[in-house]
Amino acid sequence: MSSETIQPCNLTCVKKMGQNGIVQPLLTDLYQITMAYAYWKAGKTSANAVFDLFFRKNPFHGEFTIFAGLEECLKFLEKFSYSESDIEYIKQILPSHIEQEFYEYLSSLTAKDLKVYAVEEGTVVFPRVPLLRVEGPLIVAQLVETTLLTLVNFASLMATNAARYRMAAGNLKLFEFGLRRAQGPDGGLSASKYSYIGGFDGTSNVLAGKLFNIPVKGTHAHSYVTSFSDFSELITKELHPKDGGPSKDILELAIGFRKRLISIFNVLLSEVSDGELAAFVSFAIAFPENFMALVDTYDVKKSGLINFCATALALNEVGYRAVGIRLDSGDLAYLSNIARSYFKKVEEEYKISYFSSLIIMASNDINEETILSLNEQGHCIDAFGIGTHLVTCQKQPALGCVYKMVELDERPRIKLSQDVEKVTIPGKKDAYRLYGETGYALIDILQRNLEDSPAEGKKVLCRHPFQESKRAFVKPSSVKKLHQLSFNQGKICKPLKNLQEVRKTVEQSLKILRPDIKRTLNPTPYKVSVSDDLYQFLHTLWLENAPIGELS
Amino acid sequence: MSSETIQPCNLTCVKKMGQNGIVQPLLTDLYQITMAYAYWKAGKTSANAVFDLFFRKNPFHGEFTIFAGLEECLKFLEKFSYSESDIEYIKQILPSHIEQEFYEYLSSLTAKDLKVYAVEEGTVVFPRVPLLRVEGPLIVAQLVETTLLTLVNFASLMATNAARYRMAAGNLKLFEFGLRRAQGPDGGLSASKYSYIGGFDGTSNVLAGKLFNIPVKGTHAHSYVTSFSDFSELITKELHPKDGGPSKDILELAIGFRKRLISIFNVLLSEVSDGELAAFVSFAIAFPENFMALVDTYDVKKSGLINFCATALALNEVGYRAVGIRLDSGDLAYLSNIARSYFKKVEEEYKISYFSSLIIMASNDINEETILSLNEQGHCIDAFGIGTHLVTCQKQPALGCVYKMVELDERPRIKLSQDVEKVTIPGKKDAYRLYGETGYALIDILQRNLEDSPAEGKKVLCRHPFQESKRAFVKPSSVKKLHQLSFNQGKICKPLKNLQEVRKTVEQSLKILRPDIKRTLNPTPYKVSVSDDLYQFLHTLWLENAPIGELS
Repeated sequence: MSSETIQPCNLTCVKKMGQNGIVQPLLTDLYQITMAYAYWKAGKTSANAVFDLFFRKNPFHGEFTIFAGLEECLKFLEKFSYSESDIEYIKQILPSHIEQEFYEYLSSLTAKDLKVYAVEEGTVVFPRVPLLRVEGPLIVAQLVETTLLTLVNFASLMATNAARYRMAAGNLKLFEFGLRRAQGPDGGLSASKYSYIGGFDGTSNVLAGKLFNIPVKGTHAHSYVTSFSDFSELITKELHPKDGGPSKDILELAIGFRKRLISIFNVLLSEVSDGELAAFVSFAIAFPENFMALVDTYDVKKSGLINFCATALALNEVGYRAVGIRLDSGDLAYLSNIARSYFKKVEEEYKISYFSSLIIMASNDINEETILSLNEQGHCIDAFGIGTHLVTCQKQPALGCVYKMVELDERPRIKLSQDVEKVTIPGKKDAYRLYGETGYALIDILQRNLEDSPAEGKKVLCRHPFQESKRAFVKPSSVKKLHQLSFNQGKICKPLKNLQEVRKTVEQSLKILRPDIKRTLNPTPYKVSVSDDLYQFLHTLWLENAPIGELS
Repeated sequence: MSSETIQPCNLTCVKKMGQNGIVQPLLTDLYQITMAYAYWKAGKTSANAVFDLFFRKNPFHGEFTIFAGLEECLKFLEKFSYSESDIEYIKQILPSHIEQEFYEYLSSLTAKDLKVYAVEEGTVVFPRVPLLRVEGPLIVAQLVETTLLTLVNFASLMATNAARYRMAAGNLKLFEFGLRRAQGPDGGLSASKYSYIGGFDGTSNVLAGKLFNIPVKGTHAHSYVTSFSDFSELITKELHPKDGGPSKDILELAIGFRKRLISIFNVLLSEVSDGELAAFVSFAIAFPENFMALVDTYDVKKSGLINFCATALALNEVGYRAVGIRLDSGDLAYLSNIARSYFKKVEEEYKISYFSSLIIMASNDINEETILSLNEQGHCIDAFGIGTHLVTCQKQPALGCVYKMVELDERPRIKLSQDVEKVTIPGKKDAYRLYGETGYALIDILQRNLEDSPAEGKKVLCRHPFQESKRAFVKPSSVKKLHQLSFNQGKICKPLKNLQEVRKTVEQSLKILRPDIKRTLNPTPYKVSVSDDLYQFLHTLWLENAPIGELS
């Protein structure tokens, strides 16, 4: 590690690449490369494999998941290629006996012979349905495993987490404020991106705003307030009225309003911080159209709200409307109710029609449960700024997607396990979503690739993949095929949707789920079934592969 | 988002930058930039600030933390500068009334006027001791807050997590296998890096190996095993003996050994998978010096271990030693004991001296508690491969470092709070670690910057920062100043240590902690005290800033 001066890389680097520069073929587990050599050595370069990427359990004790990360996967595949320095490094770490031809083979590898069938990014998905079906040369399909998993796992987890917050918060505004607590710089950037597609309204992360065109939000921190001790530090005190005319002394106006406010709200002047008022006034002068103040540096009721109202009234005198306040500590339900009552009182006293509807934002260690509990208690919060719990997915920080071979050279493969839930469903499969008359999704069904699609208005036998007696006839009002060919001949098949469009997909997709499946407490599981054909196929293969023991 | 072909970026991009390209000035919260403008507007550009970066609580219910991320912070500061496109973007998101001069001011900003005093990377640290003390122009010191926090928080959390696994595992080998479950690509890369400095022996992450010179590990996955159905798929069966001579048919040898093994271990031939043996033989031919097999694709006892031993015996015939096995499911204590008993039996039967000490690696959903529980049960595992729990720090996925202003223009600043633990310790401070005769650290003490350093062999009064009656005289045998000037005049002050050196620092630093502080169950808290001067200073300022209320 050297300490020489380093050139700034900035945006060009990220933009030119289309994605974070560390997403590259070596961002993988070593065993993919050792297996590649063993396959090569065993003459399996032309073997044709089918892999399914799927998860086995919805996160957060919920019954749904949002699929995300597809765009990143496809961009990764499009540029998949080992650089010279990659090959040099692989040579260093593999045994010395390995043939030069293998390295030449690796150097020439791309993902152009892979076909990827994928669920549309932003769609609600369920356990065992392949999110990606990767078909093509065994070695390449195997070499991309880890990177695809990395790109899907956190993206889907994050989008799902955000969607859950969105449901808990109803129509309130939600902002992602978690960069400082995220798992590394990219953890933060991914959190901003995927919480936006999951339904957040914006982020505090400026780079995310720049790269992904996400609305950015932010006002000031406690340090801004503590940086002012008293009025004497305020050099600029004047502001021109919005409609023109000579500037007015905002500090003087605010001090004047404050005198009356302390008597209205029964506070002693000694309890109200002068430094805080100086900070608010200076911030209001800097952002007269966007004045939002953090009111809990000192006492919210005795200082923060008084100083905020005084400053907002001063701004009003010169034709500007304050935006609102942020609460970052304490009992948020209680304090938000207090704040609203202050605003109403000021509205009455000063006849300012908008004052009671100023925005109250809360941002202290909030999680999904906090929002639900605040809803129960009753509160006056309009917007939440959410950090740690959202961006690290504290309730469950990893999604368990796996990548399993289901077919090789047209022969199905099955991975058995003592744990039935871990048995893979073999063969190349298609997935369909069957909808009822109400428009809600009834069930997903996996079929063998060669079966006909289920038809609208026709009965389909849907079976539990492992429990023989669990089956049902379903007559769908409409049917949707879940997979689309997304990568073929080295290219992304159709233009990628932008984030705003993916966000829309999430919103639409969640609407087709019955409310009882989406609820937080004891949600109903959504069923993923298999066709009768696939059921028979799976169980025949299972018996063939499970050796018969002998009791002795 | 376009789907045009994208040039591979690969290593050059990452290496040239010295760090991930997304670590740049815009990787921050918007409020840092709005505050910068408000400060600029308020004429505070020349104000000189001191900020402390510290945490309030050790993670994982433990009583220590490893400080990491310093190198990344310093590299970030060294190249801190807004690009033209950054300024363009900031213009778009800030209100239109903002003066062009402000943007010119931002364009010219660098971190050259900051001084950073830091604890040595890899040192064990405790709540309230500043990890970084950032001094310099208020605006710049404020603008770097979020990025510094992002770079320190996850790095320190991860290093601490790894160090805890290291202590639980004693001398066993530990490998980080978590890339696929990490929080994004950089989450994975950071996890590899900081788990290595925390005491891991290596990673499966190839890019981490390449970038940071960390040993990489890996063999094969279940898919490698299931890709072989029977012997007929094995094209290459021969291997030259290590010492030369004509090649031998390894498959034939292994089949021969297997015949006897099934009778030794009382297994039916129908219970042993042929596909698995084909896979093992092909892998052994590819890696005769490094043959390590995953033995749980089918039944461990009836298939995996039999096929492994058969293949290892075949390798032995041509002069190669197998390395060992990996277990990725089931009861790891039980299966590792079984595996060891198989190895011992084979050693006896075939008189192969190394067989009983073949490596047994375990890698199924392991966390700190699993290791401690395995230790209690008794097991024969030599190495652990650890994924999800390690890399996402599942037990606590975020560290709560904060960045607080403690002085502005030589005037101390204090942030009060109803929660005493959240009151900041004001003023520019130095920190010392006092050691006893045994070599163990006794206590850390924070002092005002102008106080003399505590002296060896001289009594020092150490006080609890908030509880008046808690104080003690400490006579240190030796004293260490914790902060060093690490960044000055735009440059990193001394050559950065490489990862191996930082890893050494962690190891050494943990040795100076008494075992009862490090233990998992009910660890003793290590004390962080303040000098009597600092105590008086803090409490005087507290009273000055806390307004006097009136009961009515």
